[in-house]
Amino acid sequence: MIELVAPLRDGDRRALARLLTAVENERVGVDSALAALFPYTGHAWVIGLTGAPGTGKSSLVTELAKAYRKQGETVAILAVDPTSPFTGGAILGDRIRMRDLSGDKGVFIRSMATRGSLGGLARSTRDAIRVLDAAGFDRVLVETVGAGQSEVDIVRAAYTTVVIEAPGLGDDVQAIKAGILEIADILVVNKADRPGVDSAVKALRAMLELGHPASREQMVAHHGKMMQAEVPTSHHQEIWMPPVIRTVATEGEGIGELLAMIETHRQFLTQADRMQQLEQQHIQMELVDRVREALVKQLFTALPTETLVDVVSQVQSRAIDPQTAVNHLLAFRQVNVAK
Amino acid sequence: MIELVAPLRDGDRRALARLLTAVENERVGVDSALAALFPYTGHAWVIGLTGAPGTGKSSLVTELAKAYRKQGETVAILAVDPTSPFTGGAILGDRIRMRDLSGDKGVFIRSMATRGSLGGLARSTRDAIRVLDAAGFDRVLVETVGAGQSEVDIVRAAYTTVVIEAPGLGDDVQAIKAGILEIADILVVNKADRPGVDSAVKALRAMLELGHPASREQMVAHHGKMMQAEVPTSHHQEIWMPPVIRTVATEGEGIGELLAMIETHRQFLTQADRMQQLEQQHIQMELVDRVREALVKQLFTALPTETLVDVVSQVQSRAIDPQTAVNHLLAFRQVNVAK
Repeated sequence: MIELVAPLRDGDRRALARLLTAVENERVGVDSALAALFPYTGHAWVIGLTGAPGTGKSSLVTELAKAYRKQGETVAILAVDPTSPFTGGAILGDRIRMRDLSGDKGVFIRSMATRGSLGGLARSTRDAIRVLDAAGFDRVLVETVGAGQSEVDIVRAAYTTVVIEAPGLGDDVQAIKAGILEIADILVVNKADRPGVDSAVKALRAMLELGHPASREQMVAHHGKMMQAEVPTSHHQEIWMPPVIRTVATEGEGIGELLAMIETHRQFLTQADRMQQLEQQHIQMELVDRVREALVKQLFTALPTETLVDVVSQVQSRAIDPQTAVNHLLAFRQVNVAK
Repeated sequence: MIELVAPLRDGDRRALARLLTAVENERVGVDSALAALFPYTGHAWVIGLTGAPGTGKSSLVTELAKAYRKQGETVAILAVDPTSPFTGGAILGDRIRMRDLSGDKGVFIRSMATRGSLGGLARSTRDAIRVLDAAGFDRVLVETVGAGQSEVDIVRAAYTTVVIEAPGLGDDVQAIKAGILEIADILVVNKADRPGVDSAVKALRAMLELGHPASREQMVAHHGKMMQAEVPTSHHQEIWMPPVIRTVATEGEGIGELLAMIETHRQFLTQADRMQQLEQQHIQMELVDRVREALVKQLFTALPTETLVDVVSQVQSRAIDPQTAVNHLLAFRQVNVAK
């Protein structure tokens, strides 16, 4: 695997594709390749784009990629599908819509689905972003079907997170928004030529004011240190209030504005030590995730199948409760795994 | 906490509410209470209901609960919201729709949102189901906003899983279905009075045939042992082919059929050793989840903050890669945590 890193850096697309496949399948030897390319990461601006089904995410991502290409920037699109956790082959269907982009050497498109656990997907996504980053792409667009925690995890690997909505997607869309709004740096109401767009924008703004710190006090308390470290000159420079942008992706409307806003957010983050703080948070979360997976793997590798089967059947017969079972398993580790 | 178990068993609703709050907040002492009530679990039939926003889940759950009440069965509804992972208070809005049920002693409704990690929510949900089960409810309905892995995890605690769809929810709904279909025991197309219902049902059936084993061979290979253990008398008794049911929850249409189908599925599972196998799988998954959380907690509790900060900053400066960092942290555990 490690022999693929030099060609990757030289722009070899086959080496890139092979490394991504190795990452996706958690293949042996990929760790050394990832270690070798890691020093070359940190160049790409990673943009997460998430939205519920029906919001027109794919079209928007396509238009965004086209706009970046017009500016002469190279773009990688990573389409992550966390909704197909059981089969290997996710139906990510409308890659067809991306056909406008094919044939352009400055664009690379890749779909990824869950093979095993969701933890696995979050990890593969992070590693895939690093491979694309080290390959020299200026922008990495990570597209996910949005709604639950899974998408939130994946978006956590991005620097700028764009949440996509559309008018008239049913009545309990409200419930979804509450959670997803909190991860948004930029909100897009796509399909803005449809009826109901004004009320959708209005509802989003209202929820933003609720969810996000309308009151300064709350924000200062929340971000604590960061706030005190700076001498704010204007309201806008201290905190980032997510803007709401209207687009009609299929017509290319609003794409320029979105591009400009992503750039504004990038500049906001690279001011002061914000970017460093964000990266620190990302690394911490990643280490915790990886350690968690490694620990559980260690334990269950060492644990004899009979022990596990025995403990499970004791729980099933209600002889012991689940927490007691966990304590048994952990005690086993203490004695047998470490030393 | 443990003193609440006796009143819980006697039908004391205040004890029930207090235990659920303790579970939700992972309060100290709740483990002993859960251990004490665990032997009383296994009575309730746990039904998971999941669907994308706009499918009319809440109305359907309400109607289902009303139908069970008419049969004289007691019902608990647990509405789990995994989409609000950052704030404590999820906006589960339309509990109002459930007002038809309030005032009935045989119904208990409770909403739960994520406080911490998603692992935390999956765990709290399992524990809350046990509390409701031990409280003597005949049916426990677990309702979640469906789409990602989070919902899949939660539904894994159920015996019968109902996936709810509705006509005309946008064009990339297809992508969602692929994953969620595989967890469905019963499919409901709600809002069946809307245009597009026939094509929605047709599409679902087609996807079921693709995703589910249309070919017998595949199924036999998949369920291996179970299949060989029985002498099948009819196709229907060997494998469960998820049926598609049309409902108009707001009019009460199709609810009787859904109720009957849940009962048919229950009977299917309680035949042979299927129920035992399902329960074993549930317990195994739960133990793995709990052990994972416990291990990571142990490690990070023992780890000095400076060590973590130091490792993170080494990754940030690209001095070491994430996997090497993980190895450092795990090595620390080996030396310092376990003796």
